[in-house]
Amino acid sequence: MARTPFDWLDEQADVRRRAGLVRTLRPRPADSSLLDLASNDYLGLARHPEITGAAAAAARRWGGGATGSRLVTGSTELHAELERELADFCGFESALVLSSGYAANLAAVTALAPHGSLIVSDAGNHASLIDGCRLARGTVQVVPHGDIEAVRKALDAHQGPAVAVSDSVFSVDGDAAPLAQLAEACREFGSGLIVDDAHGLGVLGDGGRGAPHAAGLAGAADVVVTVTLSKSLGSQGGAVLGPAKVIDHLVNAARTFIFDTGLAPAAAGAALAALRLLRREPERGARAHAVATTLHDRLTAEGLQAVRPDAAVVSVCAPSPELAVQWAADCRGAGLAVGCFRPPSVPDGISRLRLTARADLTEGQIAEAVRVISRTAPPAAGE
Amino acid sequence: MARTPFDWLDEQADVRRRAGLVRTLRPRPADSSLLDLASNDYLGLARHPEITGAAAAAARRWGGGATGSRLVTGSTELHAELERELADFCGFESALVLSSGYAANLAAVTALAPHGSLIVSDAGNHASLIDGCRLARGTVQVVPHGDIEAVRKALDAHQGPAVAVSDSVFSVDGDAAPLAQLAEACREFGSGLIVDDAHGLGVLGDGGRGAPHAAGLAGAADVVVTVTLSKSLGSQGGAVLGPAKVIDHLVNAARTFIFDTGLAPAAAGAALAALRLLRREPERGARAHAVATTLHDRLTAEGLQAVRPDAAVVSVCAPSPELAVQWAADCRGAGLAVGCFRPPSVPDGISRLRLTARADLTEGQIAEAVRVISRTAPPAAGE
Repeated sequence: MARTPFDWLDEQADVRRRAGLVRTLRPRPADSSLLDLASNDYLGLARHPEITGAAAAAARRWGGGATGSRLVTGSTELHAELERELADFCGFESALVLSSGYAANLAAVTALAPHGSLIVSDAGNHASLIDGCRLARGTVQVVPHGDIEAVRKALDAHQGPAVAVSDSVFSVDGDAAPLAQLAEACREFGSGLIVDDAHGLGVLGDGGRGAPHAAGLAGAADVVVTVTLSKSLGSQGGAVLGPAKVIDHLVNAARTFIFDTGLAPAAAGAALAALRLLRREPERGARAHAVATTLHDRLTAEGLQAVRPDAAVVSVCAPSPELAVQWAADCRGAGLAVGCFRPPSVPDGISRLRLTARADLTEGQIAEAVRVISRTAPPAAGE
Repeated sequence: MARTPFDWLDEQADVRRRAGLVRTLRPRPADSSLLDLASNDYLGLARHPEITGAAAAAARRWGGGATGSRLVTGSTELHAELERELADFCGFESALVLSSGYAANLAAVTALAPHGSLIVSDAGNHASLIDGCRLARGTVQVVPHGDIEAVRKALDAHQGPAVAVSDSVFSVDGDAAPLAQLAEACREFGSGLIVDDAHGLGVLGDGGRGAPHAAGLAGAADVVVTVTLSKSLGSQGGAVLGPAKVIDHLVNAARTFIFDTGLAPAAAGAALAALRLLRREPERGARAHAVATTLHDRLTAEGLQAVRPDAAVVSVCAPSPELAVQWAADCRGAGLAVGCFRPPSVPDGISRLRLTARADLTEGQIAEAVRVISRTAPPAAGE
């Protein structure tokens, strides 16, 4: 066969195969009989008739797409309504909705870290924050995970604008950042703070108002929060929350906002409906967290190694990538969908099962999940 | 007032104000009486009942969101169906759907330009391709707009993997890249070619199969195409089309695919319906191009300066940013929505009105648009 410019991909595919790290897509049917402990649908809203009904109504009323950049034809009154209610719910002055949480993180980090500034980034941060740091013109300093003293030291050594950047709840292990202390360290040195609350919104804080709200940071002049509409809110999209002048700046400077088509009306409508449902049923977030804690407690009682969850994510250690894949497949064979995180998706190289609690899981489903995970565990998993 | 870490934004806001470059969002109502020559809804499908109906049905059947990464729970049979039909329509072996065209471009460029490789990038490329180049580990060489000899020279000077990266139709001026010649140059040096067909899909090529199809590049082993679902297809999202091994590689290596929530079912459903409608009504693309040509011919006959459109975008020169804004506002006052591109959204610093043709514009609407644009033109626009 003739050589092509992409033949180097064959070699990379071989390396992946030999390392047991091949990823393949497994499309699911609309009505799966699997018990779902793998999605990020923490509040059980993605299939809720109020949310899907709102998505459908928005598509019919506003169209299949936004038709352009938010700056040209892509801003509808629906987007504005969602932004007002999201800002109000989380306690911030303004909000800006983008087409994904990834885009929101790229927007916030790049627009707030110009040339000459310093970005202090937690080593456990999500890929989208890392890519934001790489795209930003500022200098990046990565600090060890959760190390406030290292943040302080980095900020102390810098002159000029600075931001610290952190997930509120880290997606791999489900552990929370010490937000209040982080904000205190930032204030000590006049630095801004950008918090990605993707896994906190809907689950943590009063009625699900998020981790920054719980930490007393809502509405602070020096704090910017990014959220996703695709987890607790059961939809798609992302948003940046913060002082009005930060949001105005993003509208004028954030490339992933300016040069992207606006979020589809159906997604905006679904997220807005989820937000309203959350106001009416404020106990859902606490319930998701409680389910996660129960899962953790029962799995560790069975001898497995798991991280105590600060929100709705429960991480269970696996002995190797291959055994993690086998374990997840065995769970699936027994009717349970769990996440399986392997390198390079895990910064520390440790493979895990990643379980997500949902507010709508029943006691019977929780018991079944614990039974299946324990029964299918590889021998070394309890060590 | 106390100083905050974001006070430097005030100064930037002042600079924008003084330069007449402030951008503000103008949310539109669901039923606007404006004649729309500003959106990228080239085929007039965003509000088509088949497309909005499909979006609504998909939301109800599959949920408000995809609930996770495509690698975890975010791949549905609907995504797989869309990918098959999109690849088949455009003539490529495989396709991968992402949450936006921006994400698709970041995915394609970063995953195909590893450390040690060369990326040759056209100076007129879209922001998302530029950000892809900046995130990629390869070395970037920017070449003058449309300069095939410069591409050749850059490729000749490099050892190892290389890709050339270009829009097929440039978003600002609506001019087309010389794709066949570009591919020839790439082949001469064993380089791959990545083409962003955001403004070509649906408009150019046989039945709207896109600019690469028209250039005889469909299904080529050395060509990768990115498209958006948010323009001609009236929805949201993006896709990468290419050889199966390239798509497999993206599934395993592209961060904006792996670490992003899957495209919302409503958007996938809407795009799939649009694709099917396009197969049934293959003349829509040629009609959009013909409308653009008519707009150009009549506006230049009125003494205005416009770029001859290679697809559905017509760019009309304005004397200054301030006059461009005033001109667009005057059009709006007369019932016509047009795009207004100013620095920093235009690489050459020349402000323009950006008109987009739609396949469903009537002769009366075209005449009205020409009348309003000519009548509101600033005196210097015809020079």
